[in-house]
Amino acid sequence: MSTDLHHSSGLSTTRPSGSTELPLDTVLERARAAADAARTVAPADLARWLTAVADALDSASDSLVPVARRESHLPDGRLLGELRRTTFQLRLFAERLTTGALHDIHVDHADPDWPMGPRPDIRRTTVPLGPVLVFAASNFPFAFSVVGGDTASALAAGCSVVVKAHPGHPELSRLTAIAAQAALDRAGAPAHLLQLVEGEQAGVDAVRDHRIKAVGFTGSTAGGRYLFDQAAARPDPIPFYGELGSTNPVVVTPAGWARRAKEIAAGFAESMSLGVGQFCTQPGVVFVPDADSFLAELPPMSAGPMLNERISSGYVRTLADLAARNRVEIALRTPGGEGQPDVVLLRTTADAVRSDPSLITTEVFGPASLIVSYRSPEEIEAALASFEGTLTGTIQAADDQDPVGLRILNLFTRHAGRVIWNQWPTGVTVSDAQQHGGPWPASTAPTTTSVGTAAIRRFRRPVAFQNVPKAALPSELREA
Amino acid sequence: MSTDLHHSSGLSTTRPSGSTELPLDTVLERARAAADAARTVAPADLARWLTAVADALDSASDSLVPVARRESHLPDGRLLGELRRTTFQLRLFAERLTTGALHDIHVDHADPDWPMGPRPDIRRTTVPLGPVLVFAASNFPFAFSVVGGDTASALAAGCSVVVKAHPGHPELSRLTAIAAQAALDRAGAPAHLLQLVEGEQAGVDAVRDHRIKAVGFTGSTAGGRYLFDQAAARPDPIPFYGELGSTNPVVVTPAGWARRAKEIAAGFAESMSLGVGQFCTQPGVVFVPDADSFLAELPPMSAGPMLNERISSGYVRTLADLAARNRVEIALRTPGGEGQPDVVLLRTTADAVRSDPSLITTEVFGPASLIVSYRSPEEIEAALASFEGTLTGTIQAADDQDPVGLRILNLFTRHAGRVIWNQWPTGVTVSDAQQHGGPWPASTAPTTTSVGTAAIRRFRRPVAFQNVPKAALPSELREA
Repeated sequence: MSTDLHHSSGLSTTRPSGSTELPLDTVLERARAAADAARTVAPADLARWLTAVADALDSASDSLVPVARRESHLPDGRLLGELRRTTFQLRLFAERLTTGALHDIHVDHADPDWPMGPRPDIRRTTVPLGPVLVFAASNFPFAFSVVGGDTASALAAGCSVVVKAHPGHPELSRLTAIAAQAALDRAGAPAHLLQLVEGEQAGVDAVRDHRIKAVGFTGSTAGGRYLFDQAAARPDPIPFYGELGSTNPVVVTPAGWARRAKEIAAGFAESMSLGVGQFCTQPGVVFVPDADSFLAELPPMSAGPMLNERISSGYVRTLADLAARNRVEIALRTPGGEGQPDVVLLRTTADAVRSDPSLITTEVFGPASLIVSYRSPEEIEAALASFEGTLTGTIQAADDQDPVGLRILNLFTRHAGRVIWNQWPTGVTVSDAQQHGGPWPASTAPTTTSVGTAAIRRFRRPVAFQNVPKAALPSELREA
Repeated sequence: MSTDLHHSSGLSTTRPSGSTELPLDTVLERARAAADAARTVAPADLARWLTAVADALDSASDSLVPVARRESHLPDGRLLGELRRTTFQLRLFAERLTTGALHDIHVDHADPDWPMGPRPDIRRTTVPLGPVLVFAASNFPFAFSVVGGDTASALAAGCSVVVKAHPGHPELSRLTAIAAQAALDRAGAPAHLLQLVEGEQAGVDAVRDHRIKAVGFTGSTAGGRYLFDQAAARPDPIPFYGELGSTNPVVVTPAGWARRAKEIAAGFAESMSLGVGQFCTQPGVVFVPDADSFLAELPPMSAGPMLNERISSGYVRTLADLAARNRVEIALRTPGGEGQPDVVLLRTTADAVRSDPSLITTEVFGPASLIVSYRSPEEIEAALASFEGTLTGTIQAADDQDPVGLRILNLFTRHAGRVIWNQWPTGVTVSDAQQHGGPWPASTAPTTTSVGTAAIRRFRRPVAFQNVPKAALPSELREA
């Protein structure tokens, strides 16, 4: 092994062995071997591996959660809930694998009378893409980190996974990787099916490496864009599944406000400050018919400490930038305690947004939202005319007949991956119908989802078998 | 309209009105309006529009085919067959639309006992991406041109389409567009649902324009790569579905050759020279156990004139480059007649390919193939070790037990979008199970297909509706 090989991290100190200190080249070579070994594994075996990882994480809960708390500053209740979500997700994917619900199979029998000319026997299934690189996110140290949604879906797809650890929770990342790796080994999975690397350069180098066949990313628009560009610039470009930024607009209709003011105000206050506002589905922009009344109705809001210093200072900086814009003012600022962020509401008008659409496309990662007052649904539509993609769009209406609500529903369907009626965007359930994505910048791949069982599809590609002997077909394509 | 707007073509002469002479900005604005109008159209209406276009093209056959013949140099029989394929495809997509087979629907009812926490009602369907830009190909003036597979699937998805005409058949492109536009108008489709632009710059400018939401491309690796890069470099990157290059390897097994020599030789000769070798699935590389015997068995081969001078000179140039490589020799050259290409077989060894993998990844667009002799299956595997993605991989074996055939089947499943047993790769049927794509450079989007009904999915994206009143849901998500 020559000394000019890539290194997995700039760190040179000894550390727990969850992440590798091997040269990146070795990690990727192992990922390739593991992908080859997993390529034709039966869904029942993949399911067994996922379940083993879930069991191991649940068992390690007592040792993982305190480390997560120390590194993320999130409270135990939230972390335990997130860990439950994480292991539930692994088991749900496992269950769907065993019932075959995830196969995308078509069988066209030979047909001499097919109108465009005789048709051969063609049967399509999907195969794993190969080694997948996953960038862990900071804000969900379990659910979007080492064994989070991207890893779970890539493993369920039969791929090997290299996780680039998030530096916000390095120790938790290593412990999680150790637990997962050990469980995979005990379950008989190929060696090195899941590996951890650390350091920005390792991540960038891995995106560019020919052995990586797809990338999953959750994080900032700037970071995601840089990595997307690296993937697109490869001699052999690969799919890059990035979930980047979203401001998750909410429209409170006049009739909705007239009928449900207290409920709406309480729901908003909870959703905007949940997880210290550090959710990708945090409602960052709220259109209201009467800003004064909306602000008056809000209950007191507070927030715990943020994930880390970088996020905290980014929050302060972005807020200050927005607050300095024309026709934007600070409507409410609840000072945070020692080491805690202020909860802030800015206010402006739909007319101002029309002049400066960046007001509603600038993501503030933290417990802040922009309250936008409007005078007519036309003003909302004009304000959203140059709106970009968003993970969610939420309508707070009076009832099923609310005309403004129905009108905005149509508008949001064009921009959002998920449209919500009289509920709130935070709290993204894992299910079959879930959709987490949307047009740029919500996602770099708008035809896919990064949450829910459909996320698995991202890491498999279709292969058609033409006139192939039955015994040589993948088992799911043979017929009784 | 200021004079510095984009123009749809460098041409300034008057010409038949199938392609627009409008500024590109106007074309794209119309495409956006048409996409908005088509966005929520019922599948039955989309189906009616597709059928109307199919009927119109069939009716115009007598006027279209002579123009196609003059511009492409392809014989009437081939062109008539291709037109039949084109209109069949439109009608097949229409039929699948009306039966709802194309919806990708999931309904998760609210569930207070969902293990990760109470789950709201979530229902997922798909919506059109918006205006799609389609680059027509040269080699199928009907089936992969103005109303070819990409256009048919984008229209079936409910998108508006701007086609960048291929300069190889400009007159046919305009006539086809006129016929299709008129049929769409008569069928009551939104105005300007399908538009034609000409000129390279118009194509590049359109890829970069924010109103275009996805691109379909069939053509050369160099041209496709350039446009892919433009799409990826946008402030808002969009899906780019490019079908680029493929050398479509074939492996003749020793047992296959021993038992089926005559049949294999005849099948190869027909497949390699079909359409003057100008098919993306042309078998460009053939591994054989005994090159002398293989060459001796081949029937005479000939080819008609190529599509155009640019393709013809590219063919000569690429062939000369390959023939000049170490350990490559010309095994057979059948001189073409006046204005017709030579049919050429090069030969080399698997060992030489291992030293220079580019021998089998260099696509020669025309009636030529590289015959690669091997001594063992290990040699084939070594030669293919650094092989890239390919549209197809073909095995010519003895029978269902042929061990070398089964071994290569596994290998091809890792590289190819379609694996073929004892048949030939040319002749890509349009059906539900068809898969036309593969890892780079076969496709820029390996998880998708550009042929078959699944191609429609490329141009829709999922949207989840959470807690949305039944009456406000898309009709396919309402339940009885």
